[in-house]
This record gives sequence, C-alpha cells and structure tokens, in this order.
Amino acid sequence: MPTPPLPAELEALLAEPHPAVIVTLKRDGSPVSVATWYLYEQGRVLVNMDDTRIRLQHLRNDPRVSLTVLDQDWYRHVSIQGRVVEITPDEGLADIDRISKHYRGVEYPNRTSPRTSAWIEIDRWQAWGA
Amino acid sequence: MPTPPLPAELEALLAEPHPAVIVTLKRDGSPVSVATWYLYEQGRVLVNMDDTRIRLQHLRNDPRVSLTVLDQDWYRHVSIQGRVVEITPDEGLADIDRISKHYRGVEYPNRTSPRTSAWIEIDRWQAWGA
Repeated sequence: MPTPPLPAELEALLAEPHPAVIVTLKRDGSPVSVATWYLYEQGRVLVNMDDTRIRLQHLRNDPRVSLTVLDQDWYRHVSIQGRVVEITPDEGLADIDRISKHYRGVEYPNRTSPRTSAWIEIDRWQAWGA
Repeated sequence: MPTPPLPAELEALLAEPHPAVIVTLKRDGSPVSVATWYLYEQGRVLVNMDDTRIRLQHLRNDPRVSLTVLDQDWYRHVSIQGRVVEITPDEGLADIDRISKHYRGVEYPNRTSPRTSAWIEIDRWQAWGA
C-alpha cells in the first residue's frame, strides 16, 4: 500500500463530508468498526468522540486505526491506515462544532456532554475507483 | 454490545444491498478496512474475494473481522463483530454471481479470475439510528 502524501485528487475527496467507517482495536486485539464523522486537515484525520465512548479506551490502549471513506458513488472509496498521535479534550466543543458544520452546516446540538478529539497520522492509503 | 440473534428490523436492513466496510487484521495485528459487497444469509455474512487479495491471507491468519453496513441515510448503520468460520473456493463463481445480482442485477463480469468465499459468524452487533 502506498505511503503519504496522497494524490491531490484523493485529498480533495477526503476534504469533502463523506460517510466514513473507523476501526479501533479492543484490548484482545479484535477489530471494532463503526460509522463516523471525520475531518481531513493538513494531511491528518481528526475524529471526535463523546467521552463515554469505549472507542476512546481502545485508542488509548492501542493507537492503530483504519478509516474507510466512501464517495457518493461508494464504488469510489479510499482507505487509510494510521496511528492516533494526539488525544485531547475538545475544549468548548470547538472541534465537534467544526466537524458538525462541515457535515450539517450547524453547530453540534448537544452542548452538555464532554467530548475528546483524536488526531490520526496516515501511514498507508489505498483507493479504488478513483 | 448485544449478541445474536439480531432484531428483525436489522436483519431486514442487512438483507438489502448496502454499502459496507470490512475489517481484517494484518499479521502485526493492525486493522485494515475496505469497502465491500456482502450477503446476509441465515444469520451469517458472506464475503467474496479475488484469490489474489491480501485480505484473504489476513483471514486465514486471524479469523476476527468487523463489518459496518450503512443504510441509504448513513446515519442509520449496523456493525457486526465476528469470525470467519469457513473459507471455500467459489466454484463456478456461484457466490460472487449471487452477490453481484443482489447489488447490480447481473452476473459478475470477470469470469476468469478465481475467487474465494468467506462465511462470517456474528458474535456481537451494534446499531445506530435504527
């Protein structure tokens, strides 16, 4: 699988608000996948979780993740493999608001539950139909 | 996360031809995700690969997988965790034809490349927006 940087065409795809699936690893090493919002910024991927998500424990325990992003026609898709390199509290919900505006055009509705951001550094990528 | 059987509503969703992302594990334990066709039959999930896919090696090495299926409105999605319990040559391309007809209404166009089927038994599932 190729390593970064990604071709401009794929960076453009990742920069759009597409459906995505993120994978984390349980403590026993088995994979867990779930649909997610994400943001592609300056070559890294930002994801954001409610603090109560078990996914956050997975990431703290093992930083290895995979993310697949589906284009409108999902036969075009790009997958990245990487590691979470930074986990930070989402102070003032600034990150989830940025993500929510990207996907839905409005601030994130839930203002009470604390959230956490995780930044993913891309090690490898692969694309189909692009 | 709940264990099978799945509620009828989710079985109905899985039985439709939706975009899906499957996760396998590399030899070093890191996760690899990719978009895939699948078929949900009698409580198990069938996936099918060209014999040259490295994903097939992953499955032979570690049967643990995760699969996320996205509904038309992808805010409704279901994820399953499980194990590949059977890996068989797709004799006569019968399986990929069944899958291809399910998604596209026609037989699989490539008749020359050998393919392999893998059956996934579901251990746990989780759904959102359902």
